[in-house]
Amino acid sequence: MTTFVVVGGDAAGMSAASKAKRDDPELEVVVFEKGEWVSYGACGLPYYVKGEIQSLDELVSVTPEEFREERDIDLRTGHEVVSIDPDERTVTAENEGGEIVQPYDHLLIATGAAATVPPIEGTDLEGVYTLGSMTDGRDLREFVGRSRSEGTFAQPDSGPACRFLEDCTAPVGIVGGGYVGIEMAEALAENDFEVHLFQRGEHVLAPFGEATSETIAGHLRDRDVALYLESEVETVAGDDRVETVVTADEEVPVGMVLLGTGVRPRTALAEEAGVELGPTGAIATDEYRETSVPDVYAAGDCAEAEHVVTGEPAYVPLALTANRHGRAIGRTVAGEPTEGGPIAGTAAVKAFEMEAARTGLVGDEEASEAGFEPVTETIEARSRAGYYPEGGTVIVTLTADRPSGRLLGASLASEYGEGAVHRSHAVVAALYEGATIADLEGYDLAYAPPFNTTWDPVLTAAKVMGGSL
Amino acid sequence: MTTFVVVGGDAAGMSAASKAKRDDPELEVVVFEKGEWVSYGACGLPYYVKGEIQSLDELVSVTPEEFREERDIDLRTGHEVVSIDPDERTVTAENEGGEIVQPYDHLLIATGAAATVPPIEGTDLEGVYTLGSMTDGRDLREFVGRSRSEGTFAQPDSGPACRFLEDCTAPVGIVGGGYVGIEMAEALAENDFEVHLFQRGEHVLAPFGEATSETIAGHLRDRDVALYLESEVETVAGDDRVETVVTADEEVPVGMVLLGTGVRPRTALAEEAGVELGPTGAIATDEYRETSVPDVYAAGDCAEAEHVVTGEPAYVPLALTANRHGRAIGRTVAGEPTEGGPIAGTAAVKAFEMEAARTGLVGDEEASEAGFEPVTETIEARSRAGYYPEGGTVIVTLTADRPSGRLLGASLASEYGEGAVHRSHAVVAALYEGATIADLEGYDLAYAPPFNTTWDPVLTAAKVMGGSL
Repeated sequence: MTTFVVVGGDAAGMSAASKAKRDDPELEVVVFEKGEWVSYGACGLPYYVKGEIQSLDELVSVTPEEFREERDIDLRTGHEVVSIDPDERTVTAENEGGEIVQPYDHLLIATGAAATVPPIEGTDLEGVYTLGSMTDGRDLREFVGRSRSEGTFAQPDSGPACRFLEDCTAPVGIVGGGYVGIEMAEALAENDFEVHLFQRGEHVLAPFGEATSETIAGHLRDRDVALYLESEVETVAGDDRVETVVTADEEVPVGMVLLGTGVRPRTALAEEAGVELGPTGAIATDEYRETSVPDVYAAGDCAEAEHVVTGEPAYVPLALTANRHGRAIGRTVAGEPTEGGPIAGTAAVKAFEMEAARTGLVGDEEASEAGFEPVTETIEARSRAGYYPEGGTVIVTLTADRPSGRLLGASLASEYGEGAVHRSHAVVAALYEGATIADLEGYDLAYAPPFNTTWDPVLTAAKVMGGSL
Repeated sequence: MTTFVVVGGDAAGMSAASKAKRDDPELEVVVFEKGEWVSYGACGLPYYVKGEIQSLDELVSVTPEEFREERDIDLRTGHEVVSIDPDERTVTAENEGGEIVQPYDHLLIATGAAATVPPIEGTDLEGVYTLGSMTDGRDLREFVGRSRSEGTFAQPDSGPACRFLEDCTAPVGIVGGGYVGIEMAEALAENDFEVHLFQRGEHVLAPFGEATSETIAGHLRDRDVALYLESEVETVAGDDRVETVVTADEEVPVGMVLLGTGVRPRTALAEEAGVELGPTGAIATDEYRETSVPDVYAAGDCAEAEHVVTGEPAYVPLALTANRHGRAIGRTVAGEPTEGGPIAGTAAVKAFEMEAARTGLVGDEEASEAGFEPVTETIEARSRAGYYPEGGTVIVTLTADRPSGRLLGASLASEYGEGAVHRSHAVVAALYEGATIADLEGYDLAYAPPFNTTWDPVLTAAKVMGGSL
């Protein structure tokens, strides 16, 4: 019997396990997961903390029982893999009962990523959180619930954004203006916390480019989020419990701090087994997601992937890639070699009543670094026909390569529901096909007054860019 | 001086005139428009009739004065071109003051399309309308307003959908279940008319394929529209004023009838000048939109275009193509030969609280006729993450060519606002690039819980189709 062992039971791991078993029912599939949760939608955690989702169980797409009973996968939660021996083709896992040595024919390392903790003082204080796991989500939700019901850190001074308890401020600090920082700003502000968001660089959502970033920043301010840009946090301070966030210029009183400074791939287990890392620091793989060690695959938030525009390795840990690459590995292991496919670094975010997406290389800096000679143009357009009674504005930034006219990337922002994210789909497709700006401009995109102007904003952007090339 | 003469002052004509003048200010640009309106958004007429737009002027994107004064275009409204003499390179136009003979160097025929009137008895009765022009829109709006304020055809029998006048029914008949029929069903029902919609064939919105058609039909019924499918209207009857719609099986009392049975290209002027028509009955052109007569171009609703999937001439009279081809002709005339580009037959429609889009070849029948060996698959998927508090369903139909795996077309439907139309953008791009189903499945489309499931419905459809190929 052939055995496929998977380390890590989230998107990449469970996609691979499920697909391999479905395509080859004779295969023995063993999954080790050190925690209790598998196959969960971590992307939903901010909405759980916000209170829009009532139970962590709702984030689980397939339960451990279903994997075991319906999919016939030997799923072992509470088992931490502590070493891999590629020569013997075994992994060693520990659980409460002791140690197991499990042989494998194919191995997938899907150890994911960990929320980073910046190297500053005070991050071990009570009241300092990250949002990287279901447990983190539970802790944050408890914090929100406790604060709302008991007014844990109610203070006599009434701040402008404090609405949920009379005569109090409930200030919280968020360190980092990426997806997690922005989504948690919404989750906390909508629960009537006074949110202070600290961003080291000049821009929140920096990978979305300047126009989108500034649009979202303006909207955050409109929603009473206090934004501190170019404000590196030096320490978080307090006795036992966090009390202030300290930057070079400010000392802001807070009752809680969320660290949203990104993630790093969990690579220790792979490295110890002699698996090579790539230039991004994540695990390097070939197009089949096989690592430098034969029959050892890596996918999901611990691994690199090839960028569709640059052809170079990139580290963009997101759910769809984890799913897709896991699924490809499952097929490969089941006997049909399947490439995982490149990524475009596409991402989407909702921020209060706005939405944004980005894909490819956005802005001259990113494109120049990749060796292109870039042009970047930003346009604003109506989201629906000008005469249509509803609608808003879509801001589209396109980046292209001047000599070739090739489309390199895009960023879009609009009011939530006005379609920035779904409109970005056209650009993603164009990037995968190596399309030029002229190609994009020529697409016969759907039009009717309730959905766009005759030229969808994406086409208008291409038209304007065409004039700049 | 070089003179560019344009016949017809709507989308194609005014786009060409504006672009030519902008790119070559030395050019003399003369536009003849027989009516009073130019450059108007006919697509907005149903929303004007519905009452969501308050003035016809709002549908005008650029006024005659702006064309004349700001864009320096010699725009002559109220001038009907009655003949073209390609040997002499002149057109003859009539207006109230008499006849003008205007020489041209380049000529654009942009005469548009006329709403068809089916060859049945009674279409000349009072109370029978079409919706092809601004004047039609004004007439219909007046009818709605008059009926609402005066109860013009109030009857003692109270029907279930009659809400706007006490103790009355206000039944109206719509002949044809295409865009105009569906949009007008919404416009009239939302004004509390009892709407009876007659469709000759089995499906409303037939070009959208079966799944979308049936979804929309179900929604129309939910909104109390009485649907008569496979019901060819034999006559509309009445003394002076229309009183009934008669089919083989039914005689339905109505106070008004809207004919929404499509449009036919206005080609008489071109034909008389010796310009060749294509296989669709519209004006044939090459890739620069030049007709069989040198220096005579045709674009917009009177002309064919090449279909991006089949490579064959197609007649799909829609606004974006008219704009785009007009613009290309303007550039060509100004000295930079520019292809108009193919079309994908993309269309979008809102129907009450649903939306739908279609592109390419949808369904086995259309694809077989074009010489492919088609497979069609339909999936239903959540529009947002399953655990996200809002959201609905997106229905995606894909058609592909079995031997090559090539994507041929798609149709999508969802609740209004759940993104069927904007999501179709990805498919349009894929069609233009000749992508396969595997290519489509590999696109890194934007994902976050408020916008889709990890695999956007479009990707899920591609994944399912991949299993059928």
